[in-house]
Amino acid sequence: MRRSYSTEETHLSTTRVTVWNEFRHEMNPDEEPAKIYPHGMHAVLAEFLGRNADMSVRTATLDEPEHGLTEDVLAQTDVLTWWGHLAHAEVSDEIVDRVQKRVLEGMGLVVLHSGHYSKIFKRMMGTTCDLRWREINEKERLFVIDPAHPITEGVPPWFELVHEEMYGERFDIPQPDELVFIGWFQGGDVFRSGCCWHRGRGKIFYFQPGHETYPIYYDPTIQRVITNGVRWAAPRDTTVVSFGNAPALEKI
Amino acid sequence: MRRSYSTEETHLSTTRVTVWNEFRHEMNPDEEPAKIYPHGMHAVLAEFLGRNADMSVRTATLDEPEHGLTEDVLAQTDVLTWWGHLAHAEVSDEIVDRVQKRVLEGMGLVVLHSGHYSKIFKRMMGTTCDLRWREINEKERLFVIDPAHPITEGVPPWFELVHEEMYGERFDIPQPDELVFIGWFQGGDVFRSGCCWHRGRGKIFYFQPGHETYPIYYDPTIQRVITNGVRWAAPRDTTVVSFGNAPALEKI
Amino acid sequence: MRRSYSTEETHLSTTRVTVWNEFRHEMNPDEEPAKIYPHGMHAVLAEFLGRNADMSVRTATLDEPEHGLTEDVLAQTDVLTWWGHLAHAEVSDEIVDRVQKRVLEGMGLVVLHSGHYSKIFKRMMGTTCDLRWREINEKERLFVIDPAHPITEGVPPWFELVHEEMYGERFDIPQPDELVFIGWFQGGDVFRSGCCWHRGRGKIFYFQPGHETYPIYYDPTIQRVITNGVRWAAPRDTTVVSFGNAPALEKI
Amino acid sequence: MRRSYSTEETHLSTTRVTVWNEFRHEMNPDEEPAKIYPHGMHAVLAEFLGRNADMSVRTATLDEPEHGLTEDVLAQTDVLTWWGHLAHAEVSDEIVDRVQKRVLEGMGLVVLHSGHYSKIFKRMMGTTCDLRWREINEKERLFVIDPAHPITEGVPPWFELVHEEMYGERFDIPQPDELVFIGWFQGGDVFRSGCCWHRGRGKIFYFQPGHETYPIYYDPTIQRVITNGVRWAAPRDTTVVSFGNAPALEKI
Repeated sequence: MRRSYSTEETHLSTTRVTVWNEFRHEMNPDEEPAKIYPHGMHAVLAEFLGRNADMSVRTATLDEPEHGLTEDVLAQTDVLTWWGHLAHAEVSDEIVDRVQKRVLEGMGLVVLHSGHYSKIFKRMMGTTCDLRWREINEKERLFVIDPAHPITEGVPPWFELVHEEMYGERFDIPQPDELVFIGWFQGGDVFRSGCCWHRGRGKIFYFQPGHETYPIYYDPTIQRVITNGVRWAAPRDTTVVSFGNAPALEKI
Repeated sequence: MRRSYSTEETHLSTTRVTVWNEFRHEMNPDEEPAKIYPHGMHAVLAEFLGRNADMSVRTATLDEPEHGLTEDVLAQTDVLTWWGHLAHAEVSDEIVDRVQKRVLEGMGLVVLHSGHYSKIFKRMMGTTCDLRWREINEKERLFVIDPAHPITEGVPPWFELVHEEMYGERFDIPQPDELVFIGWFQGGDVFRSGCCWHRGRGKIFYFQPGHETYPIYYDPTIQRVITNGVRWAAPRDTTVVSFGNAPALEKI
Repeated sequence: MRRSYSTEETHLSTTRVTVWNEFRHEMNPDEEPAKIYPHGMHAVLAEFLGRNADMSVRTATLDEPEHGLTEDVLAQTDVLTWWGHLAHAEVSDEIVDRVQKRVLEGMGLVVLHSGHYSKIFKRMMGTTCDLRWREINEKERLFVIDPAHPITEGVPPWFELVHEEMYGERFDIPQPDELVFIGWFQGGDVFRSGCCWHRGRGKIFYFQPGHETYPIYYDPTIQRVITNGVRWAAPRDTTVVSFGNAPALEKI
Repeated sequence: MRRSYSTEETHLSTTRVTVWNEFRHEMNPDEEPAKIYPHGMHAVLAEFLGRNADMSVRTATLDEPEHGLTEDVLAQTDVLTWWGHLAHAEVSDEIVDRVQKRVLEGMGLVVLHSGHYSKIFKRMMGTTCDLRWREINEKERLFVIDPAHPITEGVPPWFELVHEEMYGERFDIPQPDELVFIGWFQGGDVFRSGCCWHRGRGKIFYFQPGHETYPIYYDPTIQRVITNGVRWAAPRDTTVVSFGNAPALEKI
């Protein structure tokens, strides 16, 4: 979405979203992920995002040519969402270079759950992006930390997930430019569950919920947060900068 | 403006802006400020903001009862802009308390130029907000530092003011949550000229240009930045938090 | 402590610490605080800080003349620690002005537990500093969020307090410049338990543990964190800036 | 330097510094860099750092085996300084991986001047690290922005370099965790000349001055800032965190 305001009118054009999914967990019909997401997680994410009049949504997956992220697709993507887990190593470095370049040019990036360990997220952060984790069907409760942040529109002060994989601190990321959510886990841990960064002309939102064995992406509050995250990360007609050798602006 | 998005439609409602001006410099018809701003600076600010379809604008000045900032006016204000200089001390502490409370509840605050030394800005920052300054008709050039920031919509990588009062570092403010502009001054100084902070549910934008003896607020780029600043600071339907004694959320 | 380094030698001079305590809870000999802290909390804080060869420690309390914070005492204080609860309103505004001025000049400020609601902390923050709380003898576990931070010297990745008053988000503070600890509470809440800010030439560390009915300040890890916080907040021979009218640095 | 404090004594052990230099500009005896730095820039940097009793200094250069940065050398390095320009592409990715890993484990990294475009700096930042530049023998004046920062110890509010290459905004870096200096350039530009970041357990300081055709590293104030930067970036005995699968800390 490129929001542009003239002095006479205010209009919102459409945000073009590409929902990227590794799409491996859901391939085994006998296992939990396929039961919850029979057409893949990307189908559910694309469905609820596509319900918004200001978004047009396509999907892309690992096993498509160029992982579905051709130059053309990326050129027509305003915000890319990313879910991966088993096969981070199979994402080609060339595609990671391409996505990084587009983010720095202004494309929004919404990284979900185990995407914390993807090549693209580690590339954008510069750190290991490692964390502590466990799977014991424990409860998570997420608290809003910055109630002035647009990602919290329509979100209550806290909300719960009956079962979620625990992701716990220390989470090895750069200090977020904006810390939006902190998660409490029943098993005794905490996590910076919603984090924002500006990088180049692009914006990045990491949101922790979304383990493949729970129906997290059907949860209306989760859907609201991801929708808000896409809107927040969408490029606007902000300043285009140039680099390189530059003439003096003043006589010396 | 409370932007609210439903799943079916996206609409922008009106942002209610109150332009506050000390309105003292412009009282002497023989002096420069009155020549540039015969109806006061607030008239010019209100005029260009009011040209936006998404804004409704009123003004308020120091010498009105309660400085024009009654409980009613503030309750109906989404964003307050503030220009003051000669008479900071005449602003009553009770009104400062009232404005601070509203900002923390979500009202946006756009502080202009010498407003850096106003009671309300010092109150929100917790620091002296002092700086170095001089008036020698020197040039200023402002550079965009964060090209992902919505305040830079439609703004070039840098722009110039033929003459501006110098405001120079060290500017005694808390590190901005978002540093949007740095100013270069011909006389040899630099300044963090555009700074954003989140405070409570409110957002604050400080923008340095606007000395009373130059026609700064007629400049189209300056108008664009202030318009963007008002839009950025406008409250949204973000999380409403509560405080105080709280029952346990888990059995212990 | 003014650490100063010459090229030939490195020496650490003494940090002069003033431990300030409201000293009201401990006045009733039949109640828990007096049993835990028979000579007042300040006595315990002063004792463990004073064990450090690089610190000289004095105490000051609310009911002393000028709350024990005369111009002289403050002029000789490098770091001030603050504990208050029942009687925030009894602290005179004049003393708050005085302390704020000293912090902005470079004095460190370590605010403990219910000091979050003191006049001086609210003054420095510009926000309500409000939070959610309860007292049900629940466990707290604090996690290190920034393992590069000097306040974490000698501190494990997490540590527990058997019983602590719950302080929960949303905590109405400016985003910390450095977020050092997040607390997990058994009753289902989280809290930004260790936060750092730079203000003027001074540094501020807020540390949440220390409810008056538990022996928190006898805990060796807590003592370590507070000791580190005092060292981090201690002034150094950093830049002294000046403000006001300034001649041009360049010919124009 | 691993600073460690016991309760009985305070001692500073030695910081082991490795000064890395590309060492190509200085190879042509007829050109300016060789005249200014006949033994290479690293020799001058090592000389003034080595004058500090709390530092032991070695050097390493591009054309040594493994660029002089063997596993052994890095294991014994507390802070690495980096100057490169012509031959960034010749630095092997394997060595960049190795340095990044050490920084995330706690080694300090001080990146100088054209090192902004080195592989290691781009790796740590996640952005292009691009900027605007020109060489016209113009003056630079650097202003202290955070007078509470230890890197400003003994540094005046501003200081000048008679001639420096211009580096100008927009500088494509993540917002610094701590912005310490802003530079003013005679030709009309500004630059965030001194920036700090925390990454993993490590700290990174970028300092812009140091063009190879001017005797910048002989300037006492520049030497002071770099010395302070090394001390700030030096690892301390801060928290060692672990990652991976983690047992529950609470029964669920």
